[in-house]
Amino acid sequence: MAVLKQGDLIFLWSPEKGDTFLIQLEKGSKQDTRLGVILHDHILDLSPGDSVTTHLGHEFCLLEPTIYEFSRRVKRKTQIMFPKDTGFILLALNIGPGSTVIECGTGSGSLTSVLAHFVGDNGKVFSYERRPEFSKLAEKNCCKWGVADRVEFKVKDIESGFDEREVDALFLDVPNPRDYLRQAWEALAAGHRLGILVPTTNQVTQVLEGLQEENFIDIQVVEILLRPYKVNSQRLRPEDTMIGHTGYLIFAAKKSLRHRRDGLSNGD
Amino acid sequence: MAVLKQGDLIFLWSPEKGDTFLIQLEKGSKQDTRLGVILHDHILDLSPGDSVTTHLGHEFCLLEPTIYEFSRRVKRKTQIMFPKDTGFILLALNIGPGSTVIECGTGSGSLTSVLAHFVGDNGKVFSYERRPEFSKLAEKNCCKWGVADRVEFKVKDIESGFDEREVDALFLDVPNPRDYLRQAWEALAAGHRLGILVPTTNQVTQVLEGLQEENFIDIQVVEILLRPYKVNSQRLRPEDTMIGHTGYLIFAAKKSLRHRRDGLSNGD
Amino acid sequence: MAVLKQGDLIFLWSPEKGDTFLIQLEKGSKQDTRLGVILHDHILDLSPGDSVTTHLGHEFCLLEPTIYEFSRRVKRKTQIMFPKDTGFILLALNIGPGSTVIECGTGSGSLTSVLAHFVGDNGKVFSYERRPEFSKLAEKNCCKWGVADRVEFKVKDIESGFDEREVDALFLDVPNPRDYLRQAWEALAAGHRLGILVPTTNQVTQVLEGLQEENFIDIQVVEILLRPYKVNSQRLRPEDTMIGHTGYLIFAAKKSLRHRRDGLSNGD
Amino acid sequence: MAVLKQGDLIFLWSPEKGDTFLIQLEKGSKQDTRLGVILHDHILDLSPGDSVTTHLGHEFCLLEPTIYEFSRRVKRKTQIMFPKDTGFILLALNIGPGSTVIECGTGSGSLTSVLAHFVGDNGKVFSYERRPEFSKLAEKNCCKWGVADRVEFKVKDIESGFDEREVDALFLDVPNPRDYLRQAWEALAAGHRLGILVPTTNQVTQVLEGLQEENFIDIQVVEILLRPYKVNSQRLRPEDTMIGHTGYLIFAAKKSLRHRRDGLSNGD
Repeated sequence: MAVLKQGDLIFLWSPEKGDTFLIQLEKGSKQDTRLGVILHDHILDLSPGDSVTTHLGHEFCLLEPTIYEFSRRVKRKTQIMFPKDTGFILLALNIGPGSTVIECGTGSGSLTSVLAHFVGDNGKVFSYERRPEFSKLAEKNCCKWGVADRVEFKVKDIESGFDEREVDALFLDVPNPRDYLRQAWEALAAGHRLGILVPTTNQVTQVLEGLQEENFIDIQVVEILLRPYKVNSQRLRPEDTMIGHTGYLIFAAKKSLRHRRDGLSNGD
Repeated sequence: MAVLKQGDLIFLWSPEKGDTFLIQLEKGSKQDTRLGVILHDHILDLSPGDSVTTHLGHEFCLLEPTIYEFSRRVKRKTQIMFPKDTGFILLALNIGPGSTVIECGTGSGSLTSVLAHFVGDNGKVFSYERRPEFSKLAEKNCCKWGVADRVEFKVKDIESGFDEREVDALFLDVPNPRDYLRQAWEALAAGHRLGILVPTTNQVTQVLEGLQEENFIDIQVVEILLRPYKVNSQRLRPEDTMIGHTGYLIFAAKKSLRHRRDGLSNGD
Repeated sequence: MAVLKQGDLIFLWSPEKGDTFLIQLEKGSKQDTRLGVILHDHILDLSPGDSVTTHLGHEFCLLEPTIYEFSRRVKRKTQIMFPKDTGFILLALNIGPGSTVIECGTGSGSLTSVLAHFVGDNGKVFSYERRPEFSKLAEKNCCKWGVADRVEFKVKDIESGFDEREVDALFLDVPNPRDYLRQAWEALAAGHRLGILVPTTNQVTQVLEGLQEENFIDIQVVEILLRPYKVNSQRLRPEDTMIGHTGYLIFAAKKSLRHRRDGLSNGD
Repeated sequence: MAVLKQGDLIFLWSPEKGDTFLIQLEKGSKQDTRLGVILHDHILDLSPGDSVTTHLGHEFCLLEPTIYEFSRRVKRKTQIMFPKDTGFILLALNIGPGSTVIECGTGSGSLTSVLAHFVGDNGKVFSYERRPEFSKLAEKNCCKWGVADRVEFKVKDIESGFDEREVDALFLDVPNPRDYLRQAWEALAAGHRLGILVPTTNQVTQVLEGLQEENFIDIQVVEILLRPYKVNSQRLRPEDTMIGHTGYLIFAAKKSLRHRRDGLSNGD
């Protein structure tokens, strides 16, 4: 059974209120809640699944933090990506342990942390961002999740292209993705997948035009909607409000300019 | 650049019709399509991104197969799980390279292949199924994706419990999940996550009641809807029909029966 | 061209902010807005489509009020019904000019105003409510829309049944609709439709059981979701948040206990 | 109790299969079903709520037809509009008994029948259509529902404008609505509402641009999604597939070019 120690991340959940906190344990620190103060020192040496009480006597349970909760709660200066989208992206881009992936832009590192989580120790994420302060923030966030060493953070405009070639997957989350499709094509391994997130339908239209010009094929556009329910067995119903939109997801595969083998030829 | 050889999986996509096939290359085999016949021998030695033509002169592009397409196309004797759900499950259960995961039931191995893909070489999936023919089919499917060695297929009723303890995550996709919550609790590491898929609201109600009885906490219920769009830049619009429902996803964390450290006491 | 006069309803819309007000004109009154004060006297004698300015110089346009905006903005002490649902109910229950409709409970009169609007001068709405203060509020609201004379407001528990028979349509919006299905069946004309709104899946289950017991047929259950978009031609996208749930709509038809004519017999 | 006679519409519903038919009674006619033949003569003199049996002994219940079912089942040569959309349009355009409404294009008359149903005997629908065969079909459909006398069917291109002025509401369902916004503005009463249905986001963008140019205000864009459920109290769940898209609904109000009364001046 894992024992919690200095530097560990832990997820706090209140049975009474459902309040949650994702904190990094530090000797002498404390967490303020509306149900009272929790001393980090009270958590040290406990294990996930255990409970502590606040100075006002309210229970908080200690749970293993998940990449789901982490990626939604990174310190942010930008819009972040949501698990409903990032989970789907992993499968659509065929990312997995050992993959090399380019992401642009880094933003606050929400998707970066997810990608780095799933490529594992043998994979690599190259994360491009023009604004140094965001890149730094994202690095700090990935550090917290323990995956910063799997990421190469690059502060760089991609107009002149990516440094890598033959990467397994590439994701664009930039305001003007249509301008970088050629660069994406060049960096990607042939037959592999590009993913793009854009918030507006006008951008989808532009990107679709660009993808066809730049030799991308098998294009798909989807939206993913998450509908949360109230957790009440006798009064089961969806939550009153839900997130109505995060973005449109576009996927496409790189077509090679090379070979075309003709089935008509006779020698076969 | 990867060269395609005997036994490789490849994804065929028609620029004209959007028709797709996910095939395993075998010398001397052929693939029938409504656009003509493709000889596997014509594909061998080509690379992803290249094209072949059918005997009627129609082009098919060769694309790297993705776990997205694979998991949707496994040979099946049961209902399968969809990428919109499986991607989300990965994050919600905090699965990743190195994780040990229990899945029950195996079914046709659609989720099994996704789990095995993402736990990597250092992870392990224990997949339980009562019906031997399904377990065998799932193993064959996972074999095709090259991840069967990461899975232990178990033909077994779980009423008497799972063989493993302290697993990182556990997923139930069975007709009567409420009956196996205690067994799930016992197998799971404290503070870690259980996931459940059920198709009906009545089952959600039953499971929610069970979870509260069996010391599960931080319960969440969600539905994920995928809305595909027609890929036409000048006439962008959602597809006329969409999948209206796959299932409700329920997540919860195991609370330990052990420790509760009291913040009121001074001496700690 | 209609000229606005004392007692008229008018809808105010700000081109700058999109702020809206639905007001009843009264000599000497004023409307406070964050863009300044509007004097009702400035509106009198103008026509829909014209504009006034606030004392701070900001424009507000005068628009014909719609039953859409009115029914969403009734003074309320209860949850109200939304146009996405009420519009659908009209068609599903085959309500129209001349219909006689029973509604229970009245609540704040949001649906009452919609029903009364559409049954016209030759139709009639019988609106039942147990709590007199709600009935009074609803009457006041319907009065404002000028349709109170088409409604008979009844403060009464329906356990002992409705007073009317052979009504064209009946709608239940009460906490325990399952308890009143027999009463609804008795009041409704044979072959006509009952509608029910319930917020939870558990209630849907109960109502479905009841409907089958009480000789209702052709049962349907639907949810209607409204997805609003941001009005920006160059950045078209759904709103960030949307209403995730109002309720489940259930519809059924009354089967007569009378006649069954047998197609096998020859003599009829 | 209404007795069914020659020429009446009646809705047939099978308790066994849920099969439905909307038929017009005609002496000597018969209705084929997969459960056997129903003779119209067997239905004459019965009442809604009663049942008949087919020559194979299967029951069909006789239900009052609804504008909901009728408008979905009109004989069609075009795409039709759905109740989820038409019900909402009624409220958003403030249509009701006594309204005068312009609709363009008529199509198969699905929306026409709904509008004519709700404007009542004192209202009027002016329905424009370029193709005479569609106009004729729509008239026949409205005739069947008994509301053709409330509709003036006009076979006419609207490029040169509508014949009417000061109408209460106007709805455009044409391939190029952006081209007719000026004509719509001219026909509509000031402060009243225009509605438009377009299937693609590109059209929404065009229409939004046009509306701002043509003095329309208070613009709204929405989508309405209908989610049907399986009617099974013990296995309640949404249907496996649903309609993913019908169209985007756009609403706007006509701003007058006339008056603007200034709140700053004191003397008025």
